[in-house]
Amino acid sequence: MDFLNYFFNPKSVAVIGASSDSYKAGGMCLMSLLQSGYKGTVYPVNPHHDEIFGIKTYPSVNQLPEAFDIGLIVVPSQAVKQAVLDCARAGAKGVVIISSGFKEIETGRELEKEILQSAIETGIKIIGPNTMGLINTACPLNLTFVPFLKEVQRGPIGLISQSGGVCLLILYALLNENIGTSKAVALGNRCNVEFSDILAHFGSDPEIKVILIYLEGIENPRPLLEEAKKLTKFKPVVAYKVRGSEAVNRAAFSHTGTLTGSFNLYQTAFRDAGIINVTSIDELIDTAKILSLSPVPRGNRVGIVTPQAGLGIIFSSIAEQEGLKLAELAHSTIEALDSCLSSMASFALHSNPIDINFGVADKQAIIQTLRLLMQDNNVDLVALLFAYHPEYTTNILEAVEELAEAGEITKPFVLMQDSPANALDSRIKDIESKNIPVYSLPDRMARALANLYRYADIRQKKETAISGHSFKAALDEAKAKSILTGVEQEGRFVLTEPEAKEFLSIAGVPVTPVKIIESSEKACSAAVSLGTPAVLKLVSPLIVHKSDIGGVKLNLTGEKEIKEAYEDILLKGRHFDPQVRVGLQPMAPPGIEVIIGAITDSQFGPVIMFGLGGTTVEVYQDVSFRLAPLNALAAREMIQEIKGFSLLQGYRGRVAVNLEPVADILMKISTLVTTFTQIKEIDMNPVIVYPNEVLVVDSRILLNGKTQGETQGDVFPVSFS
Amino acid sequence: MDFLNYFFNPKSVAVIGASSDSYKAGGMCLMSLLQSGYKGTVYPVNPHHDEIFGIKTYPSVNQLPEAFDIGLIVVPSQAVKQAVLDCARAGAKGVVIISSGFKEIETGRELEKEILQSAIETGIKIIGPNTMGLINTACPLNLTFVPFLKEVQRGPIGLISQSGGVCLLILYALLNENIGTSKAVALGNRCNVEFSDILAHFGSDPEIKVILIYLEGIENPRPLLEEAKKLTKFKPVVAYKVRGSEAVNRAAFSHTGTLTGSFNLYQTAFRDAGIINVTSIDELIDTAKILSLSPVPRGNRVGIVTPQAGLGIIFSSIAEQEGLKLAELAHSTIEALDSCLSSMASFALHSNPIDINFGVADKQAIIQTLRLLMQDNNVDLVALLFAYHPEYTTNILEAVEELAEAGEITKPFVLMQDSPANALDSRIKDIESKNIPVYSLPDRMARALANLYRYADIRQKKETAISGHSFKAALDEAKAKSILTGVEQEGRFVLTEPEAKEFLSIAGVPVTPVKIIESSEKACSAAVSLGTPAVLKLVSPLIVHKSDIGGVKLNLTGEKEIKEAYEDILLKGRHFDPQVRVGLQPMAPPGIEVIIGAITDSQFGPVIMFGLGGTTVEVYQDVSFRLAPLNALAAREMIQEIKGFSLLQGYRGRVAVNLEPVADILMKISTLVTTFTQIKEIDMNPVIVYPNEVLVVDSRILLNGKTQGETQGDVFPVSFS
Repeated sequence: MDFLNYFFNPKSVAVIGASSDSYKAGGMCLMSLLQSGYKGTVYPVNPHHDEIFGIKTYPSVNQLPEAFDIGLIVVPSQAVKQAVLDCARAGAKGVVIISSGFKEIETGRELEKEILQSAIETGIKIIGPNTMGLINTACPLNLTFVPFLKEVQRGPIGLISQSGGVCLLILYALLNENIGTSKAVALGNRCNVEFSDILAHFGSDPEIKVILIYLEGIENPRPLLEEAKKLTKFKPVVAYKVRGSEAVNRAAFSHTGTLTGSFNLYQTAFRDAGIINVTSIDELIDTAKILSLSPVPRGNRVGIVTPQAGLGIIFSSIAEQEGLKLAELAHSTIEALDSCLSSMASFALHSNPIDINFGVADKQAIIQTLRLLMQDNNVDLVALLFAYHPEYTTNILEAVEELAEAGEITKPFVLMQDSPANALDSRIKDIESKNIPVYSLPDRMARALANLYRYADIRQKKETAISGHSFKAALDEAKAKSILTGVEQEGRFVLTEPEAKEFLSIAGVPVTPVKIIESSEKACSAAVSLGTPAVLKLVSPLIVHKSDIGGVKLNLTGEKEIKEAYEDILLKGRHFDPQVRVGLQPMAPPGIEVIIGAITDSQFGPVIMFGLGGTTVEVYQDVSFRLAPLNALAAREMIQEIKGFSLLQGYRGRVAVNLEPVADILMKISTLVTTFTQIKEIDMNPVIVYPNEVLVVDSRILLNGKTQGETQGDVFPVSFS
Repeated sequence: MDFLNYFFNPKSVAVIGASSDSYKAGGMCLMSLLQSGYKGTVYPVNPHHDEIFGIKTYPSVNQLPEAFDIGLIVVPSQAVKQAVLDCARAGAKGVVIISSGFKEIETGRELEKEILQSAIETGIKIIGPNTMGLINTACPLNLTFVPFLKEVQRGPIGLISQSGGVCLLILYALLNENIGTSKAVALGNRCNVEFSDILAHFGSDPEIKVILIYLEGIENPRPLLEEAKKLTKFKPVVAYKVRGSEAVNRAAFSHTGTLTGSFNLYQTAFRDAGIINVTSIDELIDTAKILSLSPVPRGNRVGIVTPQAGLGIIFSSIAEQEGLKLAELAHSTIEALDSCLSSMASFALHSNPIDINFGVADKQAIIQTLRLLMQDNNVDLVALLFAYHPEYTTNILEAVEELAEAGEITKPFVLMQDSPANALDSRIKDIESKNIPVYSLPDRMARALANLYRYADIRQKKETAISGHSFKAALDEAKAKSILTGVEQEGRFVLTEPEAKEFLSIAGVPVTPVKIIESSEKACSAAVSLGTPAVLKLVSPLIVHKSDIGGVKLNLTGEKEIKEAYEDILLKGRHFDPQVRVGLQPMAPPGIEVIIGAITDSQFGPVIMFGLGGTTVEVYQDVSFRLAPLNALAAREMIQEIKGFSLLQGYRGRVAVNLEPVADILMKISTLVTTFTQIKEIDMNPVIVYPNEVLVVDSRILLNGKTQGETQGDVFPVSFS
């Protein structure tokens, strides 16, 4: 049995630290449980009372008359570990630890480790510590310190929040918007119950139709992504992720002991897992409403009806920005509209948005207009917008109700209808009970509708991310590994360029070979044998940014030029590394410069990056990211989604580039970083792209471990945040 | 006397087209006026009734017993012109035309022109046609067809809306957020009363503290900008501008007869005029609230207090994104917080955001914490966030009220406090009556607070835009004009490159001279005399994109190379223009390529553009715009605000560029396009920037008028939208 069933449907709960003071957390926890209508057994535990709020109270967990399912712990942090052990010994399946003072503060870190160790030893599951707890309206159950949560209405939402305060905020906002909640949980420090656990549980709960996530940042988001990927095909998941900064990180860490991580990586990874990203609490609520009420649309073409053109204009503008299209009405629809609207709305436009103008005075005209859109095959979504006007509002609302009752609302349909001074609140509730989401503002409705379409798109989209591919078989793993081992044995964490290129070659990545040259004389003869202009560059594990110190000379021809270049860069290099050497490679012909890399993110692990090279990547940060491993589809998407993609597509008369060799390199370094976990970073910059091939001209590889000297700085020219 | 005083405070109003049917516009107009509490005289005009709603009714305007101030016209469009003339003849100062069917539809365009002509002849002022009308809560007066607007509360807002429906929507949203309105007007087709008129009127109305604008697009926004510039130093103006698209444009045009224009230009021009741009209706309302209640802050450093860290994190994240900073608390504040919070909140962090945790149980601790922030000189703004919790909310609200009553709220202070199921509505109203804005969501509060700071910034900012500068005196206007006249006399609208460069030279713009060469032999001798490598390029008024057809050859040396290049491009050019010629210019040394241009926007007139050159400008559209004329400060800002500015600042060890010669060119072309209004477009691309000078290497100038052949396409590589 899914252990979370014990948490959400316990037969009995012990409140360890129950208090008779209803203003203390221990009192509020007990009140929350008692007032929620919970039908299981409640055991208050407090050594100083025989009864609290009229309920028999026990001096310790050990003295309870029988085994119980869940312990709700609200004792001071120092006493928590003993409470957890007591619960485990008494046969409890899990505990919710409300108490704080653990990994979110320095002095509590050790304490939390000890609690986790106890949990591992006893097999008990812990929600929290430092959490608000959880509710289940179906049980009903309120395992929090907020008695008011008994007011939460039962319904289709499952909510997972990292923060208790934000969990409250969202529950209240859902309540105010007349959206019911099934289960909600605030996870706090996540000792051994994670987002992924809750997600799987919510995924299999038939009462939950829409899952909402509030997240600040977690140490390892991959299990969450894996769970999301499984269930977003049949159940929508919507996430609000906080964007970090130095100050926000500090606050987040002190909140639940975790940094916010890279916002852009979360956005990309969530999107790839089929999660809908939202950027405000309002958008989270608005999206929850439409996903819980509307069917999944067939397409993104929206038909709009309004007597107030300005509302239609705001709605259209945002809808188009968010990926919807204004439907081109069928000719027959326009003709029918003409005859239905012309008498009462002499200036109606008969294009989309349909401005029904004073046609709003005629209920039948509204019904007929909406009916025509429901029947038009060019229309996937229907929106009706109307700012309150008491004399006409009745017509609008009755028209909508009649259509709904006749079963004629056959497509996703949204209504913008505001309610000044709450004039229409109960009427709006009625309409929403007919599965028609009502919004008070046109722009917010457009965003919600666009998210509904995004979900339709997610259900249709082929799996782009992350399946094994066949390259691995072709890699001589032992040979590649020996290079890395050799470097590590020398106590180094940076590969020299010849080492890096050899390593990449083993994986089949096309590189320009670089050869160590021992003297300027030998440089001349070796350069001649290249048959092309030459490049000389410094080779040293201590010098990572060799261009910046003048350690690279391009396009060299002629004996004198080569000799001088050799001596010059050697002199420069010796400032930084007395053992520096000089490498020679053929000058690559001009092409389009790109940058390809892999980096190990502290939360996501290996991530692959692609972007245009040169100054572009640094100034415009025009790069795309994907978590490794990549499959071919994801690799192609990465290339196509940079803004500068047009430059690869035959820009200004140039030949378009074949993307396959580029995608191939992306997949190969993906395999390398997932196979060799000691790799911290691969940076190939520049990579030169030709119509049908690709050449890695320079590359750097860093291994995990403390790096020294110059290499301590960032070698990567872009940041993820 | 300001003519708008007649509209907003009329002594008498005639309702032309008054109806006894309260579901018709004519009935609703009369009801609106009667129910609003209007104390002036009302004259219904309708030939079929002796009285309506118990009021004596007149068969025609001509038969009214006395002159009246304002006519409210609700007759069919065909009868409107006569009604306007009747009103003018009867001595009315203005009319509000509710009727639609004018320039927003094809068949009404002529009708609107005729009405405008009547207005010009009689001197009468017209609000509308195709409008909802206006209200003035101070009068009180409701000159609309929405009787419910009597519910609007009196207060500090002045609202100018292009659309009637959106005007309603905003008025209701203000009502729901407990924000009072002084005057509101929907302008519709703007026959002869414009945004700028209303803005000036609202600017001088002492009851109006904050001006809100909803705008789709207007034919000439400059008068609005001029008015805004005058008053934003002492009264905030907030604007929501719809972002256009093809479909939105179509809808907007059919709405009030105007296209939406370039969204980016509106944003830039509004910002320069000191208008606060918002991007949603919610943000408009939230910003209106804070601007009408809060004092102007001294800076952007915000101190945050919350018992629910997650709320503080969301707030901090958005606040930082929007330009606020988290205050670094003074050491003495932290010490004082330590002693005040330590007893009840053992895990409080004592950094900003201040997590007061269960300290919320102690009202005095909350008061003391807020007091410390009010006294800390490192803090400019104070925010308190709290999600509803009945047991603690009372402490929070009482603490705030006590501080307010003691006059201790000495800095802008905002409170996030939600009200599930309206539990706190009246309490929140009380707090807002103490000039403390209350918000229900942390992210929305952060955006509003950031806009408050933006207004502080606007008040402090030096005038950047648009004052005459001294360059004009140095321009030989007659000589420059003669070039343009010569081109026009030949029936051309495109200057050849030699003409364009000569024209620019007269204004003192540094250009590489281009010389027409009659044969390949002469090209060789002329090239030698340059003393540098040469450039050969086609010269033809018919060939604007000469690079694209291979009509430019760079870096030529040696007789053979020059001859071949000459013959080659001549051959290519003759395909397009049998009269094509070849020009020679010296090859400019490499530097940083930028693009400088001027374009005539259909709504804003002359606009100056600056961006990085090469492919960058096309792929990344990294350009800045300003309305001409520019002053030196605005020219410098334009250069500094592109993303790629770092490339001009000594990127990767290069020498930083002196910006003055670049700014100088921007000002010079600004003067050229404002002096010579026949110029449609100037495009200088590339312009090469060196550490201390600038060289225009290629340039195109287009004049107004129909262009022919290839030149019909866009010559500008960026779009404004």
